[in-house]
Amino acid sequence: MTEKISIINMSCPMPKMEFDIITLGHGSGGLLTNQLLESGIFKMFSNPFLDQHHDGAILDFSGKKLAISTDSFVVSPLFFPGGNIGDLAINGTVNDINMCGAKAKYITLSFIIEEGLTIQELWDVMATIKAAADNAGVLIVTGDTKVVEKGKGDKLFINTTGIGEVVDGVSIALSNVKAGDKIIVSNTIANHGIAIMSIRDGLEFETKIVSDTCHFNHSVPSLVQKHQSAIHLLKDPTRGGLASVLNEVARDTKLGIDLYQKNIPIEGEVEGACELLGLDPLYVANEGVYIAIVDADKAEEILQDIKQDDHCSRAAIIGQVTEEHAKQVLLHSAIGGKRVVNMILGEQLPRIC
Amino acid sequence: MTEKISIINMSCPMPKMEFDIITLGHGSGGLLTNQLLESGIFKMFSNPFLDQHHDGAILDFSGKKLAISTDSFVVSPLFFPGGNIGDLAINGTVNDINMCGAKAKYITLSFIIEEGLTIQELWDVMATIKAAADNAGVLIVTGDTKVVEKGKGDKLFINTTGIGEVVDGVSIALSNVKAGDKIIVSNTIANHGIAIMSIRDGLEFETKIVSDTCHFNHSVPSLVQKHQSAIHLLKDPTRGGLASVLNEVARDTKLGIDLYQKNIPIEGEVEGACELLGLDPLYVANEGVYIAIVDADKAEEILQDIKQDDHCSRAAIIGQVTEEHAKQVLLHSAIGGKRVVNMILGEQLPRIC
Repeated sequence: MTEKISIINMSCPMPKMEFDIITLGHGSGGLLTNQLLESGIFKMFSNPFLDQHHDGAILDFSGKKLAISTDSFVVSPLFFPGGNIGDLAINGTVNDINMCGAKAKYITLSFIIEEGLTIQELWDVMATIKAAADNAGVLIVTGDTKVVEKGKGDKLFINTTGIGEVVDGVSIALSNVKAGDKIIVSNTIANHGIAIMSIRDGLEFETKIVSDTCHFNHSVPSLVQKHQSAIHLLKDPTRGGLASVLNEVARDTKLGIDLYQKNIPIEGEVEGACELLGLDPLYVANEGVYIAIVDADKAEEILQDIKQDDHCSRAAIIGQVTEEHAKQVLLHSAIGGKRVVNMILGEQLPRIC
Repeated sequence: MTEKISIINMSCPMPKMEFDIITLGHGSGGLLTNQLLESGIFKMFSNPFLDQHHDGAILDFSGKKLAISTDSFVVSPLFFPGGNIGDLAINGTVNDINMCGAKAKYITLSFIIEEGLTIQELWDVMATIKAAADNAGVLIVTGDTKVVEKGKGDKLFINTTGIGEVVDGVSIALSNVKAGDKIIVSNTIANHGIAIMSIRDGLEFETKIVSDTCHFNHSVPSLVQKHQSAIHLLKDPTRGGLASVLNEVARDTKLGIDLYQKNIPIEGEVEGACELLGLDPLYVANEGVYIAIVDADKAEEILQDIKQDDHCSRAAIIGQVTEEHAKQVLLHSAIGGKRVVNMILGEQLPRIC
């Protein structure tokens, strides 16, 4: 370490953290990830764009609003029921752009390949990337390829960064959320996490469950264009699942959230697998699901429009924002009980995306 | 692999390649990288933006030209004389934007962390990122953090994607290059590669050589604004060094290139280390160096302006483009001989950036 770095550290001291090393839990999307971000990354790099704490950033570019989002994909295994790391990388980034109220247009593509990956595997992933990009109507405009020695990576990591144009007049932001808003989930939850789990080494089980990976580039832009300011916030509950993303919303808005278990759509087989594995589906990762927080009196109409997308046929209103139990997510169970749904601490399913 | 992929492959068959698996050489920036890109990636994803084959892509965004570039950094070790993976990641991406004739404005930042990285190491890298971003005048606007198990990564990989605005009226493109153009290199070559080499396990040697990592965000935009169409092409000779980037230019323009060895700036200590290690400095990676291919009758004036940047004090005119020996780079040696400088096949120094 050079002298330059010592000088920087003196003027920018390391915050006290509860941990000395990075663990898998820091990549979970749960509490540990949030601690790392809050106490370190967000504070150090703070600026008005980053401070939005959104799935992407919304920038001013020559009078238009540009949405940008980046994601690195480290899913293991590379191929899983319903997709592979290739469509995950395209759809995941397209969705993050959509969650900004924007239509994705361009994608950058960067590979970190472990020595020994077969050309056939790479080709299969690339063919899937091509199909997913064509399907979403986005162009791969630039990229990068790096190779690391055997044992210094894990077959293939992919980074995609997407840019898109925010729909005119639309503003999707945390600050729009208010008590009384309804919460819509766009489809059944937990499919992606369970699909990956079903083929993990040592855990394989027979199932027809497939990943829900898909994009919303042909539906969300027209949805936000139609409903404008009635749609307050869009988020995709990937790592950490529905519970984590709603906890973030509750924490950042300082409002409470009520969830109704009986309204949360879930496939029977997914629910069964969760029981078998001892997993709470609220924390299981999704890929092709989003939540919309909307004006209460427009909620039913917005719900019907969301359902027009084939990937959202089981969309449902699952709860609402409230001034009560601030910063907490409260689950009203099917049998009438209530329990607080906390943010997950560490890792339930590592390397899910 | 799902049925969906088989269908894709049928309509998009894998090209015949000379290799079945990915090797370190495919990440070298040399011939193997080029084969992989040409026969596979570029062809599959072909579109007018990607087909520019530039360090970044130049897009139309609401009437302005936007430059975008992405890079994943896998340098090993993370800390080296003169910098660490953090400033490398910021400067490298800022420079790629500059090479598009643009000023970098926004950066995305994505970490892939191996379990066990210390918080102190991460913090040191982050502090360096912050300093480098402040120095270049760019903002970190969004990011991502993933964690992989011990043994499935190598401490820390970083992806940065940058966007910037192309200077009005400027067009930096391969198609501008013509016979007679002069080639300027902005500073001494091979410093970065040798600095990394000097601390590689098993190869350590005593030296004061430090990486040349720096950015050109405060000099290149004004340079291209002043000289407009007299500057035809800008490229940074990172992986694969000066020889590889000039070979790409010769191949893609179908023109020849003459290089004069005595004019190529190199520090004595770097030259000595190259001799000791049996390395040709023309193939050694640079980070804070660019080449400019410019109108012959403006070359001297442009050279003087390039030198105004403190990091370019040893800039020099090192050769020219010619209609002779098409697609070949010819080195005129200091003692009067001539030799063809080919593109390097595989890997001279893996994981240099």
